[in-house]
Amino acid sequence: MTKTFCHQSISLDGYTAAPKQNADNPFGEGGMRLPEWMFSDPDGQAGPDQSVVDEIVGGAGAFIMGRNMFGPGRGAWDETWQGWWGDDPPYHGPVFVLTHHPREPLTMQGGTTFTFVTEGPEAAYELATSAAGGKDISIAGGANTIRQYLRLGLLDELNLHIVPITLGAGERLFDDVGDLRFEPTQVRTAPAVTHLRYRVIRSRQDESATGH
Amino acid sequence: MTKTFCHQSISLDGYTAAPKQNADNPFGEGGMRLPEWMFSDPDGQAGPDQSVVDEIVGGAGAFIMGRNMFGPGRGAWDETWQGWWGDDPPYHGPVFVLTHHPREPLTMQGGTTFTFVTEGPEAAYELATSAAGGKDISIAGGANTIRQYLRLGLLDELNLHIVPITLGAGERLFDDVGDLRFEPTQVRTAPAVTHLRYRVIRSRQDESATGH
Repeated sequence: MTKTFCHQSISLDGYTAAPKQNADNPFGEGGMRLPEWMFSDPDGQAGPDQSVVDEIVGGAGAFIMGRNMFGPGRGAWDETWQGWWGDDPPYHGPVFVLTHHPREPLTMQGGTTFTFVTEGPEAAYELATSAAGGKDISIAGGANTIRQYLRLGLLDELNLHIVPITLGAGERLFDDVGDLRFEPTQVRTAPAVTHLRYRVIRSRQDESATGH
Repeated sequence: MTKTFCHQSISLDGYTAAPKQNADNPFGEGGMRLPEWMFSDPDGQAGPDQSVVDEIVGGAGAFIMGRNMFGPGRGAWDETWQGWWGDDPPYHGPVFVLTHHPREPLTMQGGTTFTFVTEGPEAAYELATSAAGGKDISIAGGANTIRQYLRLGLLDELNLHIVPITLGAGERLFDDVGDLRFEPTQVRTAPAVTHLRYRVIRSRQDESATGH
């Protein structure tokens, strides 16, 4: 059974980015403390759980991301921008980028293609489902895109990487997603981060409506 | 080594109570979904991890709580109110209640005494330290009181019981606590709740200031 999943690093106080995101600070000022668990520890301590890192870009047949995940630009495209990842992005498969501005598809090395979708998240989901060929779909971020799929009821699995810090301000993952329930299905912990996996259950209202 | 700890049930979106807290709804309207993991499951499924429940009121030599945890009243005391817990409260030890309104101490059955402290959280901490006789101190809640001790740097261990729901609104545990870091020290999971234990590390500023 194909599922749609996402991974998100999040502070203990619920932020997925610090304030003032820009090209130099894609996670906001001070926000690099959120994803840094994925990189080798500079003090020579144990690195990240590689099985978790592998899941973040591996295992999906297609990816969906928001424009802000693809690049720092806004408005009409600067077509010289080909993503943050260089000539051989780590996706190695079809990536659908949500945008309001049309752009021709972009074929990169290593099997990654970026297709720009202007018809909204449900259209991107249909394209990704076709392209995934029976494999899973990864909602690759950012938080705003994950929120959209949570609201649409199209996300099946949420992986939170809880970074044990408070940021105090920034972008929150769970603002305005409605009344959701989840089932914890896996927990892994490490000194720098706790990995929680949840199955998304539809809201209480939906359950009442369908009699489940 | 004596430590100061707390336990807090919290929704996945960071709330410790739903909106509209009152005497009938001490966790706000709809907020009883937060502590209900502690009670037997009405569907006859597995109950809570008893070792976790025991830690919440057991193991401490003294307790500190906010007035709103002791009762729904505000302003001058209604001295007929003796807490939510009946004649034999589950604390079985000295409890210090933070309040702006003086009141004589209250001795209950089973060894619980309520002492009302008007001199602030640091005074209550000193009283609790003396009364604990070398045992740990429990900050028994609610969230506002936990926040005060986090800000004062007097909390050593934070136990979060993450309930897999979104509430969408209510009281947040981590608002305005500053730039904190934590170390995950224990994880336990169950179908209805995930138990995360953290050691509180002082803020980055403090570490820089003292050279640690």
